Amino acid sequence: MVCERVEELIEAIRELKVRGAPALGVAGALGVVLACKNADESAIENAVMQLANARPTAVNLSYGVNRAFSAAKRGKNAEEMRKYALDEATRMIEEDIRQNRKIGEYGSELLEDGDVVLTHCNAGRLACVDWGTALGVIRTAMMRGKRIEVIACETRPLNQGSRLTTWELMQDEIPVTLITDSMSGAVMQAGRVDKVLVGADRVVREGVINKIGTYMHAVLAKEHGIPFYVAAPTSSFDLRRSYKDVEIEMRSPDELIYCGGVQIAPRDVRVYNPAFDFTPFQLISGVITERGVLQPPLDDHELCCD
Amino acid sequence: MVCERVEELIEAIRELKVRGAPALGVAGALGVVLACKNADESAIENAVMQLANARPTAVNLSYGVNRAFSAAKRGKNAEEMRKYALDEATRMIEEDIRQNRKIGEYGSELLEDGDVVLTHCNAGRLACVDWGTALGVIRTAMMRGKRIEVIACETRPLNQGSRLTTWELMQDEIPVTLITDSMSGAVMQAGRVDKVLVGADRVVREGVINKIGTYMHAVLAKEHGIPFYVAAPTSSFDLRRSYKDVEIEMRSPDELIYCGGVQIAPRDVRVYNPAFDFTPFQLISGVITERGVLQPPLDDHELCCD
Repeated sequence: MVCERVEELIEAIRELKVRGAPALGVAGALGVVLACKNADESAIENAVMQLANARPTAVNLSYGVNRAFSAAKRGKNAEEMRKYALDEATRMIEEDIRQNRKIGEYGSELLEDGDVVLTHCNAGRLACVDWGTALGVIRTAMMRGKRIEVIACETRPLNQGSRLTTWELMQDEIPVTLITDSMSGAVMQAGRVDKVLVGADRVVREGVINKIGTYMHAVLAKEHGIPFYVAAPTSSFDLRRSYKDVEIEMRSPDELIYCGGVQIAPRDVRVYNPAFDFTPFQLISGVITERGVLQPPLDDHELCCD
Repeated sequence: MVCERVEELIEAIRELKVRGAPALGVAGALGVVLACKNADESAIENAVMQLANARPTAVNLSYGVNRAFSAAKRGKNAEEMRKYALDEATRMIEEDIRQNRKIGEYGSELLEDGDVVLTHCNAGRLACVDWGTALGVIRTAMMRGKRIEVIACETRPLNQGSRLTTWELMQDEIPVTLITDSMSGAVMQAGRVDKVLVGADRVVREGVINKIGTYMHAVLAKEHGIPFYVAAPTSSFDLRRSYKDVEIEMRSPDELIYCGGVQIAPRDVRVYNPAFDFTPFQLISGVITERGVLQPPLDDHELCCD
């Protein structure tokens, strides 16, 4: 799909046609470029605000929007603004690929030949510009001759694991086995998991906010003595903020009542459907960034970005 | 659906049209009645064997089959065998209801007014002859004036929680909220869960075999200091056996590749799909049976059945 207007992009973000924290950052920046198609400055600012708030939880979206909009403001008219925003967005695209590669390099050192890595949701190419964060680590390890197998959790309710992670890995011929999220404990109990590796939507003062289910895997990993790693660029960092002050996006009950358009629960059932959860640093063995593998708790001073 | 022939019932059991350990026990006994429609004794025995092995994990199926077939063997011909089997099956039906009510009485003592109870899969009327085990406990507690709310986990991959538990509870106007299995940790972390209550497919020497995901909830409950109860009749007990000697049923990859007939994963993805997992007694606060609430470890001598 191609978005010609910023409103189309906002809708695509809300419907998760673009998703994944790093991809949202770049999409936000490119959205500012589209917003600058508006002739009048207040219309641009209004569109930019809507874009930044299209989804609340991943910090990258507002980070990308703010970065491109700050650049745009140097322009004297809409055309100049558009140009500055595009330059900044292009820089972010290149940066994202470079950062993902660095994350891959640092993270791959943590994996050993023969490791079975459990992952949740999709923190791969399809969540970034290219390469991926968590899956990028696996790609780099494979490239360096380590044989890695992946266990992909399907990631209810939207099945990013089933739909995206398995597809991505199969494209690259990386061995992958699909399980339900609820099998995570059983495969760990059976001794089949060597490491857990996930992405992040926002890294805050006390831990990591990521796709719903991440916390559960982290508790299970601790119970079984399995290292639990988070891979994320520092653009996902928001270390001055507490997790208590981050809005966890609540999504539609329909995501649990229907699956692929087919009804699987009573139409009027009450549903609780947060898209993310919070995992405290105590459960996290390391945060793999483009600047190295950080041992929590993280030093706000050194790493706050922007 | 009505099964006139034992082969139809075997197929219905394999396809989970009848499911739930107690219901499988009674279905097994009634299946022996159908098997006795065969004129010749070796055909009966052959059908009975197939029936007992239609699904491997819940002990109740073979228990019900064996019980009715032992009774049938007192008959001198197929017609007499059918009659004895039917008498025994009828006794089991009445027993199941009576036992479920007793489980409800004992279990309801463990629940307090205002409790929020998280449950997994369906251990209700639709898994038994009537009343239910885990949900029976909630029904009895409600009947006795305690206000209970239920959090139902959808129970992937076949969504017994979405399809059956929510429906059952809504029929009885018991407040229920549907979540994905992966939200269990997040709702516990948020302090929203007072007790966890599930059924069992087989209670063995070291713990409980139940629907995949049960182990995960048990580990999470321990992490959050939440009591974790199992409700099951002693006909689900197989205390002489180790969990290592119980066959965990592996089901079709299609259960994860399709949902409601819609494809949600690559058609040729590798899938691991065990239907059950094992939860050790260390994680279980009590086993609610028709004879009372038992504190693990369980005394084999006193409680082995048959």
